[in-house]
Amino acid sequence: MSSQSDKSFPIPSVQRLPVYFRFLKEQQNRGEVLVSCTRIAEEFGQLSVQVRKDLSITGISGRPKVGYRVDELIDAIETFLGWNEQKTAYLVGVGSLGSAILGYEGFSEHGLNIVAAFDTDPNKIGRIVHGCPVYDSQDMLKDVQDRCEHRIDIGILTVPSSVAQETASRLVQIDVKAIWNYTPVRLELPPDIICEDVKLSASFAVLSSRLNKKAPSQNPTNSPTIPHNRQDS
Amino acid sequence: MSSQSDKSFPIPSVQRLPVYFRFLKEQQNRGEVLVSCTRIAEEFGQLSVQVRKDLSITGISGRPKVGYRVDELIDAIETFLGWNEQKTAYLVGVGSLGSAILGYEGFSEHGLNIVAAFDTDPNKIGRIVHGCPVYDSQDMLKDVQDRCEHRIDIGILTVPSSVAQETASRLVQIDVKAIWNYTPVRLELPPDIICEDVKLSASFAVLSSRLNKKAPSQNPTNSPTIPHNRQDS
Repeated sequence: MSSQSDKSFPIPSVQRLPVYFRFLKEQQNRGEVLVSCTRIAEEFGQLSVQVRKDLSITGISGRPKVGYRVDELIDAIETFLGWNEQKTAYLVGVGSLGSAILGYEGFSEHGLNIVAAFDTDPNKIGRIVHGCPVYDSQDMLKDVQDRCEHRIDIGILTVPSSVAQETASRLVQIDVKAIWNYTPVRLELPPDIICEDVKLSASFAVLSSRLNKKAPSQNPTNSPTIPHNRQDS
Repeated sequence: MSSQSDKSFPIPSVQRLPVYFRFLKEQQNRGEVLVSCTRIAEEFGQLSVQVRKDLSITGISGRPKVGYRVDELIDAIETFLGWNEQKTAYLVGVGSLGSAILGYEGFSEHGLNIVAAFDTDPNKIGRIVHGCPVYDSQDMLKDVQDRCEHRIDIGILTVPSSVAQETASRLVQIDVKAIWNYTPVRLELPPDIICEDVKLSASFAVLSSRLNKKAPSQNPTNSPTIPHNRQDS
């Protein structure tokens, strides 16, 4: 169990906000005006107190016996996550994974605007993939940046591991604020660059270890631990 | 900070094993025989004590002033994660993301054997994608299962959200042990089915919230919290 001081935003709470958000939008579409922590907790098999704590990081608090207004809660989560503000992005590496991200509407609904994609493959350069133009990553990054009105917020890294670091460094040169790293490479970046790693291998490790009977079940709520199965030794 | 009893496997520790593993393989390729916690900790900007704790879940312990044998440590991690054992899998949904997973060699190196893929698109059915045959997901799951020698361990779910639950239920019917869920849908599954969700939207939420200056930096080591920036109110 983790004891989190109220002076910090627990990452697991931030990570759970999107699923609450999704549920709240469904409720809104059904015409629901109010929602309680208990209702949300039931939906997600969590403790009500955990839901309340998660939601409180957005600065909102429900009213006893009444709950939250659905629209206010949606607004609070959107504002906390910055999902109601546009974020411009470059995506580098238009392979299968890059294409998947370009085609995923969920991100654009939350303000992610991928204005350009880059690749080294002549067969991809000049094409439009899911509405996004693909440029030559070898020499176009700086040029496209010059032509953009706004600073690019996010560089999305979906290149092969072998060129991950050099590509990240080039993104830093064109002054991105953050890198969303889908490669397994641990990037060396200046301290002011935000880096969020998508750790598919970490997910696979958790899956494998549970399949391997070393760690048979996962606590679905808030505790980041796997029950211990004592080993033979 | 979290206080984890030694009777549990902390998920963050399991999640960090793949990056240690990757580093150890590099060391092995360079001919290194021994490695210390301090060396690993330096490489990853972590506390030595955290590395030791992470590695201890595999059952291995280093020798003071000597460290670990690289080959033993690699073996211990592989054994703990079950990466040295073959796991058969079906992948359902051969879109961009599904194709990306079929083409990602990292998983197959760790024992993941995707024996068949499924889709509803007639243009995809009958094709071979990254070496994997694509069958009709509407009626083939059971048939292919019948023709397989082994039980399928993992169902990899890369279908659109709208059909995620029904596809998962069909995978349960053919007796998979685990579902690796790449959709944003929270699946309802029997309690004995292992479910590992890949939460791309959770990763995006963390990235967005940090960009949004609500949570400017992430502790790179072990504490799952984001430093608190007090809000205006």
